[in-house]
Amino acid sequence: MNKIITGEDYINSLKNRKLKVYLLGELIENIVEHPMIRPSINAVAETFDLALQEPALATAISPFTETRINRFLHIAQTRDDVVLQNKMQRRLGQLTGTCFQRCVGMDAFNALYSTTFEIDKKYNTDYHQKFKAFIANMQSQNFVIGGAMTDVKGDRSLAPHQQVDPDLFVHITKRTHEGVYITGAKAHQTGCLNSHWLLVMPTIRLTENDKDYAIVGAIPVDAEGITYIYGRQSCDTRSMEGGNIDVGNAQFGGQEAMVILDNVFIPNELIFMNGEYEFASMLVERFTCYHRRSYVCKSGVGDVLIGAAATIADFNGAEKASHIKDKLIEMTHLNETIFATGIAASYQSKPTLSGAFMPDDMLANVCKHHVTKMPYEISRLAQDLAGGIVVTLPSEKDFKSETVGHLLEKYLKGKAEVPTEHRIRILRLIENMTMGRNAVGYLTESMHGAGSPQAQRIQIARQMQIDFKKQLAKALAGIEKDKKKILVSEISDYFGRVFDVNV
Amino acid sequence: MNKIITGEDYINSLKNRKLKVYLLGELIENIVEHPMIRPSINAVAETFDLALQEPALATAISPFTETRINRFLHIAQTRDDVVLQNKMQRRLGQLTGTCFQRCVGMDAFNALYSTTFEIDKKYNTDYHQKFKAFIANMQSQNFVIGGAMTDVKGDRSLAPHQQVDPDLFVHITKRTHEGVYITGAKAHQTGCLNSHWLLVMPTIRLTENDKDYAIVGAIPVDAEGITYIYGRQSCDTRSMEGGNIDVGNAQFGGQEAMVILDNVFIPNELIFMNGEYEFASMLVERFTCYHRRSYVCKSGVGDVLIGAAATIADFNGAEKASHIKDKLIEMTHLNETIFATGIAASYQSKPTLSGAFMPDDMLANVCKHHVTKMPYEISRLAQDLAGGIVVTLPSEKDFKSETVGHLLEKYLKGKAEVPTEHRIRILRLIENMTMGRNAVGYLTESMHGAGSPQAQRIQIARQMQIDFKKQLAKALAGIEKDKKKILVSEISDYFGRVFDVNV
Amino acid sequence: MNKIITGEDYINSLKNRKLKVYLLGELIENIVEHPMIRPSINAVAETFDLALQEPALATAISPFTETRINRFLHIAQTRDDVVLQNKMQRRLGQLTGTCFQRCVGMDAFNALYSTTFEIDKKYNTDYHQKFKAFIANMQSQNFVIGGAMTDVKGDRSLAPHQQVDPDLFVHITKRTHEGVYITGAKAHQTGCLNSHWLLVMPTIRLTENDKDYAIVGAIPVDAEGITYIYGRQSCDTRSMEGGNIDVGNAQFGGQEAMVILDNVFIPNELIFMNGEYEFASMLVERFTCYHRRSYVCKSGVGDVLIGAAATIADFNGAEKASHIKDKLIEMTHLNETIFATGIAASYQSKPTLSGAFMPDDMLANVCKHHVTKMPYEISRLAQDLAGGIVVTLPSEKDFKSETVGHLLEKYLKGKAEVPTEHRIRILRLIENMTMGRNAVGYLTESMHGAGSPQAQRIQIARQMQIDFKKQLAKALAGIEKDKKKILVSEISDYFGRVFDVNV
Amino acid sequence: MNKIITGEDYINSLKNRKLKVYLLGELIENIVEHPMIRPSINAVAETFDLALQEPALATAISPFTETRINRFLHIAQTRDDVVLQNKMQRRLGQLTGTCFQRCVGMDAFNALYSTTFEIDKKYNTDYHQKFKAFIANMQSQNFVIGGAMTDVKGDRSLAPHQQVDPDLFVHITKRTHEGVYITGAKAHQTGCLNSHWLLVMPTIRLTENDKDYAIVGAIPVDAEGITYIYGRQSCDTRSMEGGNIDVGNAQFGGQEAMVILDNVFIPNELIFMNGEYEFASMLVERFTCYHRRSYVCKSGVGDVLIGAAATIADFNGAEKASHIKDKLIEMTHLNETIFATGIAASYQSKPTLSGAFMPDDMLANVCKHHVTKMPYEISRLAQDLAGGIVVTLPSEKDFKSETVGHLLEKYLKGKAEVPTEHRIRILRLIENMTMGRNAVGYLTESMHGAGSPQAQRIQIARQMQIDFKKQLAKALAGIEKDKKKILVSEISDYFGRVFDVNV
Repeated sequence: MNKIITGEDYINSLKNRKLKVYLLGELIENIVEHPMIRPSINAVAETFDLALQEPALATAISPFTETRINRFLHIAQTRDDVVLQNKMQRRLGQLTGTCFQRCVGMDAFNALYSTTFEIDKKYNTDYHQKFKAFIANMQSQNFVIGGAMTDVKGDRSLAPHQQVDPDLFVHITKRTHEGVYITGAKAHQTGCLNSHWLLVMPTIRLTENDKDYAIVGAIPVDAEGITYIYGRQSCDTRSMEGGNIDVGNAQFGGQEAMVILDNVFIPNELIFMNGEYEFASMLVERFTCYHRRSYVCKSGVGDVLIGAAATIADFNGAEKASHIKDKLIEMTHLNETIFATGIAASYQSKPTLSGAFMPDDMLANVCKHHVTKMPYEISRLAQDLAGGIVVTLPSEKDFKSETVGHLLEKYLKGKAEVPTEHRIRILRLIENMTMGRNAVGYLTESMHGAGSPQAQRIQIARQMQIDFKKQLAKALAGIEKDKKKILVSEISDYFGRVFDVNV
Repeated sequence: MNKIITGEDYINSLKNRKLKVYLLGELIENIVEHPMIRPSINAVAETFDLALQEPALATAISPFTETRINRFLHIAQTRDDVVLQNKMQRRLGQLTGTCFQRCVGMDAFNALYSTTFEIDKKYNTDYHQKFKAFIANMQSQNFVIGGAMTDVKGDRSLAPHQQVDPDLFVHITKRTHEGVYITGAKAHQTGCLNSHWLLVMPTIRLTENDKDYAIVGAIPVDAEGITYIYGRQSCDTRSMEGGNIDVGNAQFGGQEAMVILDNVFIPNELIFMNGEYEFASMLVERFTCYHRRSYVCKSGVGDVLIGAAATIADFNGAEKASHIKDKLIEMTHLNETIFATGIAASYQSKPTLSGAFMPDDMLANVCKHHVTKMPYEISRLAQDLAGGIVVTLPSEKDFKSETVGHLLEKYLKGKAEVPTEHRIRILRLIENMTMGRNAVGYLTESMHGAGSPQAQRIQIARQMQIDFKKQLAKALAGIEKDKKKILVSEISDYFGRVFDVNV
Repeated sequence: MNKIITGEDYINSLKNRKLKVYLLGELIENIVEHPMIRPSINAVAETFDLALQEPALATAISPFTETRINRFLHIAQTRDDVVLQNKMQRRLGQLTGTCFQRCVGMDAFNALYSTTFEIDKKYNTDYHQKFKAFIANMQSQNFVIGGAMTDVKGDRSLAPHQQVDPDLFVHITKRTHEGVYITGAKAHQTGCLNSHWLLVMPTIRLTENDKDYAIVGAIPVDAEGITYIYGRQSCDTRSMEGGNIDVGNAQFGGQEAMVILDNVFIPNELIFMNGEYEFASMLVERFTCYHRRSYVCKSGVGDVLIGAAATIADFNGAEKASHIKDKLIEMTHLNETIFATGIAASYQSKPTLSGAFMPDDMLANVCKHHVTKMPYEISRLAQDLAGGIVVTLPSEKDFKSETVGHLLEKYLKGKAEVPTEHRIRILRLIENMTMGRNAVGYLTESMHGAGSPQAQRIQIARQMQIDFKKQLAKALAGIEKDKKKILVSEISDYFGRVFDVNV
Repeated sequence: MNKIITGEDYINSLKNRKLKVYLLGELIENIVEHPMIRPSINAVAETFDLALQEPALATAISPFTETRINRFLHIAQTRDDVVLQNKMQRRLGQLTGTCFQRCVGMDAFNALYSTTFEIDKKYNTDYHQKFKAFIANMQSQNFVIGGAMTDVKGDRSLAPHQQVDPDLFVHITKRTHEGVYITGAKAHQTGCLNSHWLLVMPTIRLTENDKDYAIVGAIPVDAEGITYIYGRQSCDTRSMEGGNIDVGNAQFGGQEAMVILDNVFIPNELIFMNGEYEFASMLVERFTCYHRRSYVCKSGVGDVLIGAAATIADFNGAEKASHIKDKLIEMTHLNETIFATGIAASYQSKPTLSGAFMPDDMLANVCKHHVTKMPYEISRLAQDLAGGIVVTLPSEKDFKSETVGHLLEKYLKGKAEVPTEHRIRILRLIENMTMGRNAVGYLTESMHGAGSPQAQRIQIARQMQIDFKKQLAKALAGIEKDKKKILVSEISDYFGRVFDVNV
């Protein structure tokens, strides 16, 4: 296969693969042309086109190949690399109005890069070297990588090895000289069908008894033994109705599927962890650290929704009301908070032992935690500005109908100079983003992706250095008067990074 | 036609009417059997069945006919009548999980009852008498009444008579000895197809130049000249897919359509306002006063969603986590706030000149204003408890499929003792209520029904008696020391009701 | 002593008592004339004057004496009695801008009334009869009653009998034929010095080992063995500086003190529980049920603060800005939510076995829970409208100074027609209510009085009938299809009251 | 005078100045030893001591003198310089628990540096050169600079030249060959008495008629013609009572005074704007841009309050309750949001024409806007954790009293191993920060400093590029399909900075 360059190349690269994909109870022959799937492919294709149009933003020079590569395949060498991820993510959110599905792979790449380094350091293994070779290969082809982490989990109160059905977490079922075979299922796999390779990783902290679950490896999306079952989304079948209005955003959408692995083979050279169970938590935590601040993308999606809300206010002739303006300001304030907290995490990045840079984990969690709330409030305000018509609008077919189309044209007229269809299109976009297909990505995925709200609270609790803060209070309350002030260079963990003078 | 008694009678009463209804571009022959429409009919049918099962809650003795009638057709004779409306509304919200569409008619009946009384008092007209006759007739048949108020409005900055197209507000186009002809369109008409009669009313404050718009009258739903265009709802076509899982709530739904009136005739005896433009605002304000506190129904719907969220936590084995319990408490706290503020408005009812009781307008607005926010937060928390699976779940057809059904059965297993299908059903109910069909009623209708948030803020501002409060502050600040304390009996308006000792 | 009629009578009745009161390290001879204490006495005096001015609001006919008595001493005979408590409380909040300290006694009276009835029913004791006699006596004198519940508690993880120091909860130290002796301390005693009698009650659920702690009795405020230590409040000493501006609210304030009981005697006829430990929780829960919705008073205080904020906006010439108006609306919306949820609890009152009416416990908790947040937000908005000057204003002495007074007069001028002193007075009132003396009552007491926020969440959890709600959800999800609908008359607890058709 | 090095040097430098300072109606001879003033001096002294202990954090190399100087006197040469300001501010917030008063001068220095550069560029004046000389002089002495911007403003609806009294904004009253004389008053002057020099600046956008108001210059704090009137703070006189417990934070406090200028002379070489009225808005906007993100200091103060809340939970034995831990997490989440949004603004700094770096104005406003709310919520939660005792605690004098001290020791005991005095000290610190002296800085100054909430909303509105966002929405809605995608390098203003690839 030739190296993928353009979005079109990418779309072509997905054709003619032998995948077992089920959707609405049927086996899908051609995912590329399926109207329910295509918008999600288009969204990934934007990551290629952006790299061509904006190389400084969306590409980087690979330290492994010394060639220019897509930033989604790049290991962050500097703090600026981490920051530029966020900038690229916001721009892609603006251009697609949805999830462009390539961040999981990017964040998995970076997390695994430093984790394999540290496994090797401890065990003298060669995972890091093998992983670098894999990265270089992916970069040379410009492939899309899916990060397959979330297991289906079964009974949440039991560890992997304790489950009645051992397959409820992906695990090794057979070991040969050539490699291993794995079985299990990964849920909510964003963009999996649109990827070329999957990086399979454990999803939680593991113990010695879970050794067979401590497996990381790369498998091609069309590997033998994989079945994909496509997830339903709100209003998903509208894309099969033939029009392009009621879908709201005709071009772009997200994708999530369940990936079922039935004795899928991973050859030795593509195995990057194999039994080193104590590193599972490091991998998960580093992945979520990168990924939680990757939700800066939602500020780009938010830009679209704010724009849509402002547009419908214009079309309704209500744009000058002070409460309308005030709501747009509030939406912006919230949206920029997502951006600011995420990019602050990126700017506060520090190098790992491997040299790759990693964002600040506290601020990454603060960012993601806002993302579990603010898009919902932005969405609520967008519905406020839209008016009730956003949920009572007749169908595109009625608008196009010879019998009643003219009635709707007459009675849905807002401002004289605005075509009724434009008003309807913006309303359908708002519906799409607040309760339709892209609400899945903008809202519910914002809630649960990279960990549900409580996961962030736990991580914030771990890092909040409450003892350090108690010392501050006790000193000022006169309880501990004579303590010498601690030097900032002696402060560790989060506050060590806060007060790191090497900005 | 025989008097309608049961829900089944009601459903039968809707058959064989000659309506011009368009849905997805097609003329619908039989609305009763249409899978997209039927759930909304079922919801109205519940208002009949509840009256049979719970007469004390859902019926009353008519002062006009001295027979027992459905409470939705009753003019509130006492404060308790107003309170019992709320209790009935919450119960119906619990039983249907959606909008049961009969409140608009009830609230229009009550508002128009006292308004016609006051028009007659001023102009010596006979609207009130005619309206009482109409009410008695409706009661004797147990008909469903739709209140048709919201015009399409065109350019929001222009009065009705100023619009380029005069039809953008419903108005009289012709007057004869027998009655009047009206033209225009009413948007977002909740339950209109499911009604037997429509009460057409103006939607805003009118001035002398808008006299032709000051028309109130009753028309049968199947009157000549009416075209209905059915509104799309999120995920609406799922009800046409054949299953009963993916729809989430297979039995009940809401309904909103656009009603287009093309020279529809109203005979004199069914005209209840005709040119008395200065009473338009009284009618609108009284209607919204009743209707804003009718949103107590959403606390009943909220009960269902809280129950669904608690159930999925059980099914996931997460019910003991303190943060889960805390979120259920928060949802309850919010939900009961809706109930409490609404029922407080009802309890603080006062009689109008006509003798009919009307809720407290300040508290009704406080209630509705919470309704524009709290269901969104309850919904967000429900999605939090549901987990990401609520938006990535494969289709019912996949679950039922011979090829992959067993895989989903295996991998979507939660707690051992819970059937996988039950888990899926609850997840689909949560999807239905937070982004699917019933999210339309639970969220967006909560935002915009009975007036958008800003409408409540304006009404709160009108009633907040800021001068009275300034006096209180000035007295305590020592600015106005010598003022004698005002007697509570001398306090008027809202605080007059607050301090009314005749509880 | 003559029966107390007027506020002045009341103030006189406090003179010449032999109390051991410590304040700022000194024994106070004359609490009535002490400038730091007097404002709290004035606030209680208002409860007498209001009864004279507004008998319908602030008095009732005693069923025991058949004479007109102050409502604070009345046992609620009807739902309307409970509602009128709230109306009276809001009015007194408006008139004093602070805590008028008489609700604890009223709520303790009512809670103890029904609890003694139920103890007697079980044990055939005569507490209820004795308590009625005590009530009649208090009514005949129009005394002020303090309810002494909150123990100092020591180590929160230990039960009363487990504490190293047994005195950390009030308990019986000696029993004689004539009565019992008690020792311990009650913290945060609102208005205790301003009362004539204290009702001592346990503060938590007790077990068999805590029998000596299960003591309820009445003691005169000047009983032998009591020491009072007055609590400091923010800015308390300003009242000793001589002016009347910097204090903000010169006339009224709150009062809280610690009451230390050293072998204080209670004669048999004034003992209303003695060892029936299992009724301690009933007493506490009924008291908090009444008391949590008594915080409706804060909506009256909120009226003053909203008025002050509106006034300062006027004085600054900023009253027409849309954001100013919008903030006043928001403050009102929040303030009325407190009122509405509280009065809804009162309207939903039901009779206890004793015949006395008790508010709805769920709604009472919803009310109080809002009170732990909304006054803080109202206060924040008041500071927003006030401008920074509210915390940088020079002192009254500077304004009155010959040297610099004219400079302040010149430079603190706002609108030409408003005297500078008026502007300063309103600013000082806002300071008083948001961070000064009356912020203690308006904010922190709103947080912790009648139980801290978590106490309400626990009580809401107890009453939220989550299983009932799960059934609603399961029915609509199609999990439990064939269940017959439950009759509302078969629903118990909270929803039993919600759907009680005997409004 | 020798160069100031240590905090002690600084304190000495304030002695023996001839200032006219009024406080509580009296002329203060010695501000340094005045117990109400000294804590504010101590807070400034910390900025000197920190520079000694943490030179990398709190000093920089001056480009003008090439020597190491205090960072508060440094003109930001790089983005890192801007970021390090924030890091230093958070640390000082942690160490003092209050406002350390030196940021206004730092931010004024930086804003004026670039503004004078741009005035000179337009008018060929020499302000920039003169200002650099002034800076070098201040650096060589390590002086404290106060930025005097906020005029008293009089009638807010009138421009400076329209006021009845022309002195309500500071203006030139006389011009001579040697310089100018100015008259007027500056309100809310943080740390003015603790400064050595004041930079007088206009406070609003000016027009041609306001030319006499377009004056910027430096004056020594002890210049002839200045009168200072000290602002009262909540609980201010506690510092005069003799103890060190009830004050809460005995060592540190803030300071605000009114500065009245009566024909104060500014020599030509210290004039940095003189009539170039159109640059007033540039100066104000740049100053607020720096200053709004300087409120990152409040995250340091927040660290102390979170520590105090955690400590009191420990002392009460409540630290293990899940709701306690959850509230500490929430406080941290809010507190870190302040930090993250502020430091994001600093990291996104860009150079001005003068070469000095300036933060991102949108993000600076987002930061400050959060600061107007989040400290209030953190404060509310701290009061929640503290318990009601925080406002009912008896006085230090009672604790120390021979008569009742032992009773308080006994009854205020919490956990056995914690000295009662420690518990009291932490409670007093919480009172101090949430309603006492340092609440002035932590809350009300957070609300109004650097502009009240509405000022930030206006600035966010100016920068939100709503047309750009509308384009994004229209493109995705299919309204404007054929538009070529704009290059990020062609995007200007805020999004130009967002997408600037030169990180």
